[in-house]
Amino acid sequence: MIITLKKDSGEKQIDNLVRWVKSLGLDVNVSRGNNTTILGLIGDTSKVDIDLVNSIEIVEQVRRIQEPYKAANRKFHPDDTVINVGGHLIGGDNFQLIAGPCSVESEEQIIAVARAVKAAGATVLRGGAFKPRTSPYAFQGLRDTGIHLLLEAKKATGMPIITEIMSIRHLDLFEDVDIIQVGARNMQNFELLRELGRLKKPIFLKRGLANTVEEWLMSAEYIMSEGNGQVILCERGIRTFEPYTRNTLDLSAVPLVKEKTHLPIFVDPSHASGLSRLVSPLSLAAVGAGADGLIIEVHNDPEHALCDGAQSLRPEQFAALAEKIRVMLPLVGKKDIK
Amino acid sequence: MIITLKKDSGEKQIDNLVRWVKSLGLDVNVSRGNNTTILGLIGDTSKVDIDLVNSIEIVEQVRRIQEPYKAANRKFHPDDTVINVGGHLIGGDNFQLIAGPCSVESEEQIIAVARAVKAAGATVLRGGAFKPRTSPYAFQGLRDTGIHLLLEAKKATGMPIITEIMSIRHLDLFEDVDIIQVGARNMQNFELLRELGRLKKPIFLKRGLANTVEEWLMSAEYIMSEGNGQVILCERGIRTFEPYTRNTLDLSAVPLVKEKTHLPIFVDPSHASGLSRLVSPLSLAAVGAGADGLIIEVHNDPEHALCDGAQSLRPEQFAALAEKIRVMLPLVGKKDIK
Amino acid sequence: MIITLKKDSGEKQIDNLVRWVKSLGLDVNVSRGNNTTILGLIGDTSKVDIDLVNSIEIVEQVRRIQEPYKAANRKFHPDDTVINVGGHLIGGDNFQLIAGPCSVESEEQIIAVARAVKAAGATVLRGGAFKPRTSPYAFQGLRDTGIHLLLEAKKATGMPIITEIMSIRHLDLFEDVDIIQVGARNMQNFELLRELGRLKKPIFLKRGLANTVEEWLMSAEYIMSEGNGQVILCERGIRTFEPYTRNTLDLSAVPLVKEKTHLPIFVDPSHASGLSRLVSPLSLAAVGAGADGLIIEVHNDPEHALCDGAQSLRPEQFAALAEKIRVMLPLVGKKDIK
Amino acid sequence: MIITLKKDSGEKQIDNLVRWVKSLGLDVNVSRGNNTTILGLIGDTSKVDIDLVNSIEIVEQVRRIQEPYKAANRKFHPDDTVINVGGHLIGGDNFQLIAGPCSVESEEQIIAVARAVKAAGATVLRGGAFKPRTSPYAFQGLRDTGIHLLLEAKKATGMPIITEIMSIRHLDLFEDVDIIQVGARNMQNFELLRELGRLKKPIFLKRGLANTVEEWLMSAEYIMSEGNGQVILCERGIRTFEPYTRNTLDLSAVPLVKEKTHLPIFVDPSHASGLSRLVSPLSLAAVGAGADGLIIEVHNDPEHALCDGAQSLRPEQFAALAEKIRVMLPLVGKKDIK
Repeated sequence: MIITLKKDSGEKQIDNLVRWVKSLGLDVNVSRGNNTTILGLIGDTSKVDIDLVNSIEIVEQVRRIQEPYKAANRKFHPDDTVINVGGHLIGGDNFQLIAGPCSVESEEQIIAVARAVKAAGATVLRGGAFKPRTSPYAFQGLRDTGIHLLLEAKKATGMPIITEIMSIRHLDLFEDVDIIQVGARNMQNFELLRELGRLKKPIFLKRGLANTVEEWLMSAEYIMSEGNGQVILCERGIRTFEPYTRNTLDLSAVPLVKEKTHLPIFVDPSHASGLSRLVSPLSLAAVGAGADGLIIEVHNDPEHALCDGAQSLRPEQFAALAEKIRVMLPLVGKKDIK
Repeated sequence: MIITLKKDSGEKQIDNLVRWVKSLGLDVNVSRGNNTTILGLIGDTSKVDIDLVNSIEIVEQVRRIQEPYKAANRKFHPDDTVINVGGHLIGGDNFQLIAGPCSVESEEQIIAVARAVKAAGATVLRGGAFKPRTSPYAFQGLRDTGIHLLLEAKKATGMPIITEIMSIRHLDLFEDVDIIQVGARNMQNFELLRELGRLKKPIFLKRGLANTVEEWLMSAEYIMSEGNGQVILCERGIRTFEPYTRNTLDLSAVPLVKEKTHLPIFVDPSHASGLSRLVSPLSLAAVGAGADGLIIEVHNDPEHALCDGAQSLRPEQFAALAEKIRVMLPLVGKKDIK
Repeated sequence: MIITLKKDSGEKQIDNLVRWVKSLGLDVNVSRGNNTTILGLIGDTSKVDIDLVNSIEIVEQVRRIQEPYKAANRKFHPDDTVINVGGHLIGGDNFQLIAGPCSVESEEQIIAVARAVKAAGATVLRGGAFKPRTSPYAFQGLRDTGIHLLLEAKKATGMPIITEIMSIRHLDLFEDVDIIQVGARNMQNFELLRELGRLKKPIFLKRGLANTVEEWLMSAEYIMSEGNGQVILCERGIRTFEPYTRNTLDLSAVPLVKEKTHLPIFVDPSHASGLSRLVSPLSLAAVGAGADGLIIEVHNDPEHALCDGAQSLRPEQFAALAEKIRVMLPLVGKKDIK
Repeated sequence: MIITLKKDSGEKQIDNLVRWVKSLGLDVNVSRGNNTTILGLIGDTSKVDIDLVNSIEIVEQVRRIQEPYKAANRKFHPDDTVINVGGHLIGGDNFQLIAGPCSVESEEQIIAVARAVKAAGATVLRGGAFKPRTSPYAFQGLRDTGIHLLLEAKKATGMPIITEIMSIRHLDLFEDVDIIQVGARNMQNFELLRELGRLKKPIFLKRGLANTVEEWLMSAEYIMSEGNGQVILCERGIRTFEPYTRNTLDLSAVPLVKEKTHLPIFVDPSHASGLSRLVSPLSLAAVGAGADGLIIEVHNDPEHALCDGAQSLRPEQFAALAEKIRVMLPLVGKKDIK
């Protein structure tokens, strides 16, 4: 951490600051220039409150040199985290396809889609039961019924399932869910993250619409700091000024995140653009960028989907896409999906 | 709602779509051009699922003409909402100053600050008990103890209090809190909003860092649609590319929001920039823009604040600012603070 | 174009507006609801000034239904534009690699790099002569000397060359340059675009850092409306709140642009992230997204590059990348580079 | 400047880097931690090419501590720059109102508006002659004729005039123009900035839609480094995700810029929002934020303006606004307009 002091800082104030920093167990390197005095803090600064330092009157600027995340940091944990979900490995040189409908609608629908995506190569089944919707008047998902139907589909096909949690209060319902998804809008719902950190279950943490990679890794750190190291990150588009697409898929984040952390990273090409005709090109793009997997919306009858149908592929489109992905995998150092 | 169809849409598909729209109780105006056919939907389209329409194969584009919010919409409720908080009126031609420390730290601290800001003209006391922090290693607030201390300060000074809720689970603790704040990160925590909509207590709804004005009003609508019409909006800065300030205070949102909705709108100049030296100019700017009030961080000893001290004013700075604000109020059609 | 009128618009004002619209040669469809009257304009609205319409007192909102670009619009020109540059085809099912150093530094340097990238499969040579730099104190390129050196390299290797123009005044120097690049900062330098529209030479139009896809296509339209249809678009990253990468590469723009326009689209993975270690994964991602080519910085000695070295590949890294790209091309319906 | 090195940097590479930095006339402070070695560069680093440093293989991260601008930097020039325009002072404790139509349309129009705004308190006349328009099909201004008409209005009223330049080629036409405006889209047209730096005339430099405050000051530096210190900055809104307003007026930039530089800063509330009904509240907001002046669009007949009429005030609205502004000026330490 580098602290730049204001030009006219008094000696006594500087001394006080240096003494305080040392009291935190850190070393300080003071370098005095003509216009600025700079303090270099040496040691583990991840617990130093940057806002507190900023509040000190003689401080002009504070900058972190070290990343504030530790458990999620590849520097301290160089090996890829590999997570086992019902026998399917996530992370490392493995690649997985998660697929299923935006919303669970009925037993026939979810089982039909599950069978179709499994046949096409998907290894995990997704389906929305609790749906976060901008409007209170829009369909909010089948909620607990949705989860029960997903569990039926799991029984029928043997596929592990993933679905989104929207409130700690619903946690009991997720007992047999294999991966719990935290949606973009809850990425900084810290009370929820902490609670999920106490589970022994993979957490699928979507990036918030306006969150930096660093904040995202800090949210992973919330989960990990409570003891749950099974975090899967998922890039799903960030908010920018471009109106043609719903969000801007940030694929640069994929190789970047793989450098910063050992956690697996997935991409959701369906929600990013909000347009089903972009799903296939963006999926191949994500594989090229080095993603560890994709989560894709597939619907058997997109014209009657109750929500987000605009971004769903039909099963045959998904199968054609999966075919191309498998051809690409060796190019990016990945083993075949299994 | 205007639906633009693709160039080569078949007659039968168009008929199906028109029939479906009519089945929702809406009228349809079909206008056929050379390159596009356009459907104009007439009636209450606020419950039409725009994503569902988008998913229909012949649809090129869907655009809302009417705002999707109703209870919060000034078109249907032209008169300003005025909320009574312990005898102080919020909204209309009233102006209120909410002030207090970022975090509640001790009984002496909160009571001392409360007395100081009350003397300077503040009418409501703020103070953080549950603190959302990006890092799991940063100070998270005194939590329930913080709320008890706020209640002590309320007793000692007679000021109504406002503090932030982070989880539905803590709701019981908020029984004697006068205004419940929903932080920017929870603006789309829909399960929480719904629950707060069942209370009979003012909700202070901060705008999310990456949320549009429309989404913000839709979140107000979540609360209002459950029966609680006492919603106070608060602009606190949005996320942009500019790194010098923590967020970019969107003051254009103030006159805009007053046009779109009848709800009161406050501005938080402390959190937007993250720099205490910008608080006074941005406060005067907010008054000029037409805000119904300000929420300002004030600390008796900013250099030792446990969090966010960087953005806090000292009591004497706050008093000088309040003085200037009172001079400005008649210029913007507001009565004196009381 | 859809014009929504304010609730209380007078009949006479509406009549005036309708008459004025008809005087522009357009038809109008008036639909009156309870809360809003909506005018649908039918005909070629690309020349209607949307700001002028917005200025009319009774107008609440104006929305375009048709895209404002015509020459660049795929609706009116469904076939892909294919451009011949020194025998190499750009667009359609062709794929090209443009490569070379950020800045031209010396004859040896540019010829050495040209030979290396040609051997690895590049078909066009890039090199900066005029360099737009944020700081007046940073190296600004070798300017005319740089162009002369590029022409030497063209002679030595037979590769066509591309380089950036920064001012109309330098146009004479570009006579033997094969493709003229318009940089991101000049995307809306309309006087320059018009002038380039009068040439018979391909123009490589980079997307501005904060420009929407629609504005980008309107800038292409500026060039095309003067008679020059040889425009190649290039996505190079947009400005967002994410600080880890210099810009956010918007790969969703690739399939989107291919849908909206018949012009070829390239991707620049070097400038987007500003980090050389992201160039290879982002290149494969761009191919997956369907790009018609890539423009990549390659340097023989990146540690001593005079500018932007951080984002350059070494020739052997470029060759390995080109190899992988060629394997991918059939997957995205592209012929081998030639 | 702080250079953080990668974990596994070799001693020899570090030595080379240190030697190179010293060869630039800088001192280096090396501090070795367990996970990182950090170099602190001491001296005038404004000419160090940050991209070049980034390109060095052992470098993980480079951060500037000192601002890269010098002539524009308040640290080195603590006193406010005050510019005399036809007897009216700009900067310091002075406040000026620039007003006039978006586009110059005819002699009668410009003279009528000039007289009206002068009577209401404006001291400088604005009017667009060359108009940057997104669409090649939109009205582009009267160009040279527009400038001649502005000069007529100057003669008729004695008001100094300001108008925008779009190309170096038109420079001759600006000989009698008092202030030359550089529009947002040309903020980084470096060739133009340099040329304007050789004049002895105030330059009104608008902030680019997607430019940081630092880049903006670097563009001022381009002008100043050529010898022209008369630069007036103008905030006019930045591009964000919010669609209700055309741009987001960044009023936090006002007090921030006044801290960073001694140059005067104006605000353009007309272009930021694109909505005339927001102009008055945003003007008062800008005064509250501490602006040195405003540039406001005023039209005598906004419903027939040829461009941007949507954001223009009528003369009587402008006069009412000017009245309020004058009441506010003492509150922000400004003398009356004169």
